[in-house]
Amino acid sequence: MGDGLNIKEQFDIAVIGCGPAGLSAAINGTIRKKKVGIFGTDFCSPKLHHAPHIDNYLGLHNMTGEELRKRFLDHVKAMGLGIIENKITGVYPEEGGFMLQSRDTFYKASAVILATGVSAVKPINQELDYLGRGVSYCATCDGPLYKGKKVIVLAYNREGLEEANFLAEIASEVLLVSQIKEKEAQGITLDEKIKVIQGKPVGITGDMWATGVALEGQNLTADGVFIIRDSVLPDQLVPGLNVSNTGIVVDRSGATNIPGVFAAGDCTGAPYQLSKATGEGQVAALSAVKYLDELKNKAGDTKKELAAI
Amino acid sequence: MGDGLNIKEQFDIAVIGCGPAGLSAAINGTIRKKKVGIFGTDFCSPKLHHAPHIDNYLGLHNMTGEELRKRFLDHVKAMGLGIIENKITGVYPEEGGFMLQSRDTFYKASAVILATGVSAVKPINQELDYLGRGVSYCATCDGPLYKGKKVIVLAYNREGLEEANFLAEIASEVLLVSQIKEKEAQGITLDEKIKVIQGKPVGITGDMWATGVALEGQNLTADGVFIIRDSVLPDQLVPGLNVSNTGIVVDRSGATNIPGVFAAGDCTGAPYQLSKATGEGQVAALSAVKYLDELKNKAGDTKKELAAI
Ligand SMILES: Cc1cc2nc3c(=O)[nH]c(=O)nc-3n(C[C@H](O)[C@H](O)[C@H](O)COP(=O)(O)OP(=O)(O)OC[C@H]3O[C@@H](n4cnc5c(N)ncnc54)[C@H](O)[C@@H]3O)c2cc1C
Ligand SMILES: Cc1cc2nc3c(=O)[nH]c(=O)nc-3n(C[C@H](O)[C@H](O)[C@H](O)COP(=O)(O)OP(=O)(O)OC[C@H]3O[C@@H](n4cnc5c(N)ncnc54)[C@H](O)[C@@H]3O)c2cc1C
Repeated sequence: MGDGLNIKEQFDIAVIGCGPAGLSAAINGTIRKKKVGIFGTDFCSPKLHHAPHIDNYLGLHNMTGEELRKRFLDHVKAMGLGIIENKITGVYPEEGGFMLQSRDTFYKASAVILATGVSAVKPINQELDYLGRGVSYCATCDGPLYKGKKVIVLAYNREGLEEANFLAEIASEVLLVSQIKEKEAQGITLDEKIKVIQGKPVGITGDMWATGVALEGQNLTADGVFIIRDSVLPDQLVPGLNVSNTGIVVDRSGATNIPGVFAAGDCTGAPYQLSKATGEGQVAALSAVKYLDELKNKAGDTKKELAAI
Repeated sequence: MGDGLNIKEQFDIAVIGCGPAGLSAAINGTIRKKKVGIFGTDFCSPKLHHAPHIDNYLGLHNMTGEELRKRFLDHVKAMGLGIIENKITGVYPEEGGFMLQSRDTFYKASAVILATGVSAVKPINQELDYLGRGVSYCATCDGPLYKGKKVIVLAYNREGLEEANFLAEIASEVLLVSQIKEKEAQGITLDEKIKVIQGKPVGITGDMWATGVALEGQNLTADGVFIIRDSVLPDQLVPGLNVSNTGIVVDRSGATNIPGVFAAGDCTGAPYQLSKATGEGQVAALSAVKYLDELKNKAGDTKKELAAI
C-alpha cells in the first residue's frame, strides 16, 4: 500500500487524537526533538469541553473543562505545534513505519501514538468480521474498488452524506441509510442517483465477503458497505491491534502489541480521567522516542556492518 | 505491633511522600470522600524545587519547578489538606490496615500510597539482610530494645546526631559514625556518653543478628546498628515489598504485591517525570478508593451473614 500515493507529510511520530492524552504526548515528543503531527477531529476535545468542573488536575484548581481545554491548546500552540484537522481512518504498516489514511489525504509516520479517547459507539453485528472484506470506513480510500458496482452507505453524521455523494460518482447504485437528524443534514443536496432508505441497521450480512445490511425488518444487498460515523474503534483503526473489552491493551510503557504503535488516555481503559490521560501521553511519547532512537541505532549498525564487508 | 501504642491519627488513606505524585493522589482520594493523610519531609519536593524550567506539564507552560511546586501546594491547601511533616520509617500490616511509624509518632491507615520519589542512596553491604535483626532506622521505635546495651549510629544527617543523643539516654554505650559536614551539625551538642569515630561505613557484619559495622580499615562491634539518613528505601519502608532494580513493582492500577499498598511516581521507575507522577498518583488513589470500598462491602456481607445465622 502507498505506492504512487500522494503522501502529504511525513512525521517521526503521528499522534492520533487531540484530547489531553494526545496533546501531552505531542509536547513531550516535540521537546525530544521529534517531528510530531497531531491529528484531530472537530474540536479538541468534546469530552473535556463538556466537563463542568474539574478539581483534580494538580496545579489547576477549580476549573471548567473548557478553561482547561483552552489552556491545553494554548500550551501546544506556544510550542509551535498545530493540529491537523483530519480524522484518521486507518493505520497500516509500511516499510520503515506506518501509512496513515484520512478521508482525502495520506500521511506517513515512523511511530504512532493512539490517543483517540473512549467512544460509546458499538459496532453493528458482524461489522468487524467483514472489515476489509466488503466493509469500509473511507469512501475516498476504497470507493474506486466499487466502480460500476452497488454500494450501501450507513451514515451516522454529515460526512456520511458527503461520502454518499462522492460514491454516487463512482458506483452504479448507492443505497443510503441515514441515522442523522434533518437539521444536521441542512445544506447538503444528495445526488439524484442515491436511493434513501429508512431503517436502523442491525448487522452486516454476507458469506466470505459482505453482501448486504440487515435493517430492522428489511434486508439490503450490495457489493460493498460503507459505514461513516464520528469515531473509529481502535481495532478498526489499526488492524491487528490487541484490544480487550476495557480498551487497547498496553504495558506500563504504553506499548501495544504492534511494535511502533503506542497508546495513551481513555482509549487504554479506566479510570477515564485527565491526569491519567496526560501522564500516559507523556510516557507513550517517551517510549516512542526511545523506539525511534533504537531503530536509528540499528540502522546505523547495519550500515557499519555493510561498510565493514 | 501497635498494642498500647499511642496512635496519633487514623486515616482511610495514608500518602507517603509529598511530591507531585503524592499530592495528586491526595486530592483524588479527598474528592472521593476518603480521609487522607499526606506525610512529607522538609519541603515538598526538593526535586521539583530544583527543576530549572519545565515545559512539559500540559496546561502550565514555561514554568520553573519552584512555580509549579507552589501551585501544587496551593491546590492541596485549597482543598483543605495539610501536610504532616514527619518522615515515615516503617509501614507494618495490622488488623484492618497498616501501622505507620515515624520518629516519634504512630499513625494508622486502611490503605497506603507510596509516593516517595527516587533516591540515589544505595544501602551499604548486607544492610537489608539484617533489617529487623539488629539494623534499625528509627531510634524512638527500636531504641528501648537496647536498654543497657551497646549501639552504633551511622548518621547521614542532623537527625542522626539527635537520634544518637536519644539513644545515649537508653544504651550503655553509643558509637557515632557521622557522615555529615560540621556546618550541618551546628547547634547540636553531643551527649558525653557518645564516642565519635571517624570513617566510612562499608558494610554490616554479623551472623544471624547484626553484631557490628565494617568501616574502611576498622571493624566496630555492638548489639545493634541504627542507620539514619534522609531517604528510606521502599523495601526498608515496607518489609516484603516487591521491588526490582528500577523501582517498586506495580501493575497498571498502581497496586504493589501487598494488598492495600499502592505506589506512584518516580518510586515506580522511569521515566522520572512530572505528568507521569501526577497521573500515577491519580490512578493509585482511585485504586485505593476501590480497594477500601470493596473491603467495606465484604465487611457488610460478613455482618449480614452473621445476622442471618
Ligand atoms: C461530563 C464530564 C466530566 C468529566 N469530569 C472530569 C473530572 O472532573 N476530572 C477528570 O480527571 N476527568 C474528567 N472527565 C474525563 C476527561 O475529560 C477524560 O478522561 C479526558 O478527556 C480523556 O482524554 P483523552 O485524550 O484520552 O480522550 P478525549 O478527551 O476523548 O480526546 C480524544 C480526541 O481524539 C479525537 N479522535 C478520536 N478518534 C480520532 C481519529 N480517528 N482521528 C482523529 N482524531 C480522533 C476526538 O475527536 C477527541 O478530540 C470528565 C468527562 C466528562 C465527559
Ligand atoms: C533538575 C531537575 C529537572 C527536572 N526537570 C523536569 C522536567 O522538565 N519535566 C518533568 O516532567 N520532570 C522534571 N524533573 C523530574 C520531576 O521533578 C520528578 O519526576 C517529580 O518530582 C517526581 O515526583 P514524585 O512525587 O514521584 O517524587 P518527588 O518529587 O521526589 O517527591 C517525593 C517526596 O516524598 C518525600 N519522602 C520520601 N520518602 C518519605 C518518607 N519516608 N516519609 C515522608 N516523606 C517522604 C520526599 O522528601 C519528597 O518531598 C526534573 C527533576 C530535576 C531534579
